[in-house]
Amino acid sequence: MSKIYATIITIGDELLIGQVVDTNSSWIAQELNKIGVAVKHRVAVGDVWQDIWEALDEESKKADIILITGGLGPTADDITKPLLCEYFNGKMVVDQPTLEHLTHLFEQILKRPMIERNAKQAEVPDTCTVLKNEQGTAPGMLFKRDGRIFVAMPGVPHEMKWMMTHHVLPMIPELYNTGFIEHRTLLTAGIGESFLADLINEFETSLPDHVKLAYLPNFGMVRLRLSSWALEKKTLNKELDNLFNLLKINVKEYLVIDEDLPMEVAVGKLLKERKQTVSTAESCTGGYIAHLLSIHPGSSVFFTGSIVSYANIIKERMLGVSHEILTTVGAVSEETVVQMAKAVRETLQTDYSIAVSGIMGPDGATAEKPVGLVWVAIASKDHVVSKSFQFRFDRRRNIELTAINALNMLRTMIVDNS
Amino acid sequence: MSKIYATIITIGDELLIGQVVDTNSSWIAQELNKIGVAVKHRVAVGDVWQDIWEALDEESKKADIILITGGLGPTADDITKPLLCEYFNGKMVVDQPTLEHLTHLFEQILKRPMIERNAKQAEVPDTCTVLKNEQGTAPGMLFKRDGRIFVAMPGVPHEMKWMMTHHVLPMIPELYNTGFIEHRTLLTAGIGESFLADLINEFETSLPDHVKLAYLPNFGMVRLRLSSWALEKKTLNKELDNLFNLLKINVKEYLVIDEDLPMEVAVGKLLKERKQTVSTAESCTGGYIAHLLSIHPGSSVFFTGSIVSYANIIKERMLGVSHEILTTVGAVSEETVVQMAKAVRETLQTDYSIAVSGIMGPDGATAEKPVGLVWVAIASKDHVVSKSFQFRFDRRRNIELTAINALNMLRTMIVDNS
Repeated sequence: MSKIYATIITIGDELLIGQVVDTNSSWIAQELNKIGVAVKHRVAVGDVWQDIWEALDEESKKADIILITGGLGPTADDITKPLLCEYFNGKMVVDQPTLEHLTHLFEQILKRPMIERNAKQAEVPDTCTVLKNEQGTAPGMLFKRDGRIFVAMPGVPHEMKWMMTHHVLPMIPELYNTGFIEHRTLLTAGIGESFLADLINEFETSLPDHVKLAYLPNFGMVRLRLSSWALEKKTLNKELDNLFNLLKINVKEYLVIDEDLPMEVAVGKLLKERKQTVSTAESCTGGYIAHLLSIHPGSSVFFTGSIVSYANIIKERMLGVSHEILTTVGAVSEETVVQMAKAVRETLQTDYSIAVSGIMGPDGATAEKPVGLVWVAIASKDHVVSKSFQFRFDRRRNIELTAINALNMLRTMIVDNS
Repeated sequence: MSKIYATIITIGDELLIGQVVDTNSSWIAQELNKIGVAVKHRVAVGDVWQDIWEALDEESKKADIILITGGLGPTADDITKPLLCEYFNGKMVVDQPTLEHLTHLFEQILKRPMIERNAKQAEVPDTCTVLKNEQGTAPGMLFKRDGRIFVAMPGVPHEMKWMMTHHVLPMIPELYNTGFIEHRTLLTAGIGESFLADLINEFETSLPDHVKLAYLPNFGMVRLRLSSWALEKKTLNKELDNLFNLLKINVKEYLVIDEDLPMEVAVGKLLKERKQTVSTAESCTGGYIAHLLSIHPGSSVFFTGSIVSYANIIKERMLGVSHEILTTVGAVSEETVVQMAKAVRETLQTDYSIAVSGIMGPDGATAEKPVGLVWVAIASKDHVVSKSFQFRFDRRRNIELTAINALNMLRTMIVDNS
């Protein structure tokens, strides 16, 4: 066996003019990594015949598995299918199962007439194996050449994911002896990348050659990932677990969670374990913390609800912040968030609450209160802690940082209360 | 002059194992397009010497401008800087302005000691022009070779954006005679890509060769983008505006907005123009609609707040949904959302309100109520409209689709009321 490499080719002008952020590639890379296939290269090209052709030529020199997404739609700018037909010396034929799937989809599910443009999606090169697309209209195509596989999938994320999960990922271990890559990831908060690197310098330099440490900084947190590749899963895991335990001891003071999970999931886990609940009162984050807490399945166990008091009148009317506070120290103040936190916890009857108020920018700053100033309060039955932050970024990033730091304050309180 | 092409090389293992979604590339592409530079290719490579070297070789064959992001951090896995030093036959020297910037940053702003790891960030190849990084520690580097420019920037998004905006983008028109690319984009809702293609088939086939039409489907909406490239801005704009007007007439029935703006901004614009306000009562979306409405600057003019009633007890207590309704027809019902919409509009005293309740999955389905079933109600002073949807996707997508469709229902009501 030898190491198996994949490359990803994403096709579509929308990726090159920047109107769409490519989320497919990172998902594909994650899934391939889990089964021991390393993504070596990723390339994005436009809907241009020559560029796609060259990408196929070049990427097939680099990898064993070439995954292609996009360009399979029913419209005129989608040229991937005829190109693949020519590239793999085929001719177009109607794939009967796909035609039946399309007919069923339009007649039974969508209940609208199937137009010719859609019917044409059942045509495929006769040199490919068709991969059924349960989630949409464009079928996937698998080609083999010189020991390599080329898989073309739709660019629509949920269609691509379904096809990868049901067709492509199960096929790879059968085709290749892929070996194993394992990762161990932990999340830290409250320490910068450089200081963290200094803290674990001795650990890092003592790592064996086949184990790699990566720093993944994001929004005031740093994830640390240990990766190792080997022929045998058993020895791999044991060694990696030992190293990971050592790493955890090294960063103990800053450790949020020893899994590759976002902050809000780490907090949700703590609450679930303790059968406790949380609510939020949000001004400047406008419901974003509530959204983070509720985006993951199973959140109804610990998340009850929120009062998004974007306007001051809502802070007064629904959260009991006095008119006096709002007109003297103002909405962005310790007094305001403490009252918001107390009120929402009582009204929504939760164990904990989070309250935030700040100036996210670009507007709204005053001489005393610059853009990026945020007050956060966390309340439990017995006490309230509050803290101010001064972020220095744009609106989106300030909102994100406010949410992450507020959740980390809640996490600290939950852990301290245990 | 000739057409100027750029390619983007993103460097970092985190992009290849999929732990980070690359949002830099789409931003860079958008900004380059605005000044008439077309991105021809985008490639992601890991922190691997040979792969980065090859990418530099290959991409310089394809483009005039090679933009490189990532791999400039202070940690051991960041090898881009020494590699560029060797690639461009330089030797490392301390850049005095960068060292002063770093010293100032640590002493005055971060107020913590500068460790050696950080001080080393002031070292740069003597064959580059240094681009100051006001937003962080790693300086940018500009190299020239054979009429091409190579720009290396940090991977941290806000640092890269600052550097592009202040150094790179202003430099390009000075270096190249770039010509002009113009885009016109509109947003449609309520019609699929194929039907839209049929609707505008005649328009599309009549387009001149230098004008391109692209379909950008996303979350039940399709954006249509007309693009044209020419030497002269004046004639370009006139022709494109005429074609765009024709396109707007063709899709009139489904047109949301004739700008490249997301649905929530289109809705916010309508409300601002009419000096009207909106509030939301959210169950299944958990604050996501509030987040969408408040993420953009200036939203406090039309967005007042929300009651996120994730738990049924909050629907009863704060939105007056009767216990009888909740125990008979249930939380996911027309009765519930109509009451939620009426109550939140009255409590938060807004002109309009949005209420949603549904089953986002993967849990929570019953025999009568499958995953993806959502009820939406929109209330104004005089009436309430409600509608159910059946989405067929995963949790995140169902939440996104619920928000977009609810916002589109509000948009329709605002337009109908005018």
